Amino acid sequence: MSKFTPRNPDFAARVQRSFENQGFMAHLGAKLSSVEAGFVEIELPFKAELRQQHGFFHGGVVGSLADNCGGYAAYTLLRAQDSVVTVEYKLNIMAPAAGDTLMAQGRVVRAGRQLFVTQADVFSRKDGRDIHCATMLGTFMTLIDTPEIG
Amino acid sequence: MSKFTPRNPDFAARVQRSFENQGFMAHLGAKLSSVEAGFVEIELPFKAELRQQHGFFHGGVVGSLADNCGGYAAYTLLRAQDSVVTVEYKLNIMAPAAGDTLMAQGRVVRAGRQLFVTQADVFSRKDGRDIHCATMLGTFMTLIDTPEIG
Amino acid sequence: MSKFTPRNPDFAARVQRSFENQGFMAHLGAKLSSVEAGFVEIELPFKAELRQQHGFFHGGVVGSLADNCGGYAAYTLLRAQDSVVTVEYKLNIMAPAAGDTLMAQGRVVRAGRQLFVTQADVFSRKDGRDIHCATMLGTFMTLIDTPEIG
Amino acid sequence: MSKFTPRNPDFAARVQRSFENQGFMAHLGAKLSSVEAGFVEIELPFKAELRQQHGFFHGGVVGSLADNCGGYAAYTLLRAQDSVVTVEYKLNIMAPAAGDTLMAQGRVVRAGRQLFVTQADVFSRKDGRDIHCATMLGTFMTLIDTPEIG
Repeated sequence: MSKFTPRNPDFAARVQRSFENQGFMAHLGAKLSSVEAGFVEIELPFKAELRQQHGFFHGGVVGSLADNCGGYAAYTLLRAQDSVVTVEYKLNIMAPAAGDTLMAQGRVVRAGRQLFVTQADVFSRKDGRDIHCATMLGTFMTLIDTPEIG
Repeated sequence: MSKFTPRNPDFAARVQRSFENQGFMAHLGAKLSSVEAGFVEIELPFKAELRQQHGFFHGGVVGSLADNCGGYAAYTLLRAQDSVVTVEYKLNIMAPAAGDTLMAQGRVVRAGRQLFVTQADVFSRKDGRDIHCATMLGTFMTLIDTPEIG
Repeated sequence: MSKFTPRNPDFAARVQRSFENQGFMAHLGAKLSSVEAGFVEIELPFKAELRQQHGFFHGGVVGSLADNCGGYAAYTLLRAQDSVVTVEYKLNIMAPAAGDTLMAQGRVVRAGRQLFVTQADVFSRKDGRDIHCATMLGTFMTLIDTPEIG
Repeated sequence: MSKFTPRNPDFAARVQRSFENQGFMAHLGAKLSSVEAGFVEIELPFKAELRQQHGFFHGGVVGSLADNCGGYAAYTLLRAQDSVVTVEYKLNIMAPAAGDTLMAQGRVVRAGRQLFVTQADVFSRKDGRDIHCATMLGTFMTLIDTPEIG
């Protein structure tokens, strides 16, 4: 159970709408697989267009999912009239993202008045086993009274 | 003029080959626009598939270019029998990446025996003006006697 | 119980000796309060010399403890003939470090062949309550066959 | 010449006062050696109390100076009624901080409405030669209408 109480009961649908408005997530082929208060999970099946030079998921793909699930984890805790932007994140790549699926889980560590600190872990699933391939620590800022359009 | 002396005279062609082996860079539509000893620049024209929910370049795209040009800047200084991987990077998003072209410039700050520290700046070009939209500081590791295949 | 198996049974005494050789930790007044395989905790009572301009523990003190307990967490997993250095770390300050004691806990997230990724959390104890004031994510490198002297 | 125009003509004296209110900087023995609009330099002579286990400046000292000169670089650009706090920073340690003096230079990269991105470089001076031993990239936030007391 989440330690956070959402301020917008419609938070899950709102995250879903925002995610669908990101052309880039569709271009990657990523899908939201879980949305809870302070937590978001994204999944992405492998395809050749996502590879780096060794045939694994590209680091940029890993970073994109980490950043995105971290930001959306914060987004679940906003009021309906607010939105959120990435201030910065730091990503450690710990193992090659080898496998047929990439899975990124973002969690809110600290929900401040304006700033959120979130943490994310990225796993690649290979032969039914999850490899913890990256971890992220990032900062996100609420845009107060600035809802997303669309 | 670069303060670095490359150890592989073929470094520019080698970076180009490695870049072309990254399916993800082609999927984005990115191109290498400059390769010098300790310096790499990548350019990417806007297309709808790269957008986030406000219509700008997605932060994941910005991060992918920053990571990549940082890593390839290190790659220019390697011996022919070595390759490089991203250990970690930190990216500050400073402004929305609005515009018709994204341009990322990576520079080696420190070339150690095994570890490289590189710095990258990302600009978006809008109406002929460059916006400094992100800056990165990252760590990359040499895989000694482990050349890339292909 | 730790998920790590130490390779040097003497690891706790070794961390203790190294810590005591750091003049700076004594200058701060910090003490090791717990050493386990992959985990280290440091405690530091408040004194006026550690304050920033608002009278709280200085951010530099918070960062010093985070860096140190992260590095020593890695150190617990080394062989007797190896040592460890900080490659880099990123610290989020989440709340003022107000209180009479600072407590930093470092944990190994990933123990690689040469690189360690560790995570640290810093708490300040005020009126018997712990405030989670900072979180760190860092990278540490093993110096193989390079023991510390002393 | 600085690219920034300070909004408080008294900025240098104000940074000096705030610095002197940090008991920790006196405890280290650090001094402000330069304050310009968007730029601050701190110097610190070596003493045994600042050493790590190999006899060099402790990484926590290096980080403290980097964080501090980064924050004060932002501080030079504030209005008289505002103050600044560290949101986060990332520090790469690139070489042992060996030498008799440590010198940290902080520069504002981006001055936003509320957030500052600053960059810092730390050098250790040994036998009259400067070693570039660390580099920092950090985020700082303006506390609007919240001046420092004292």
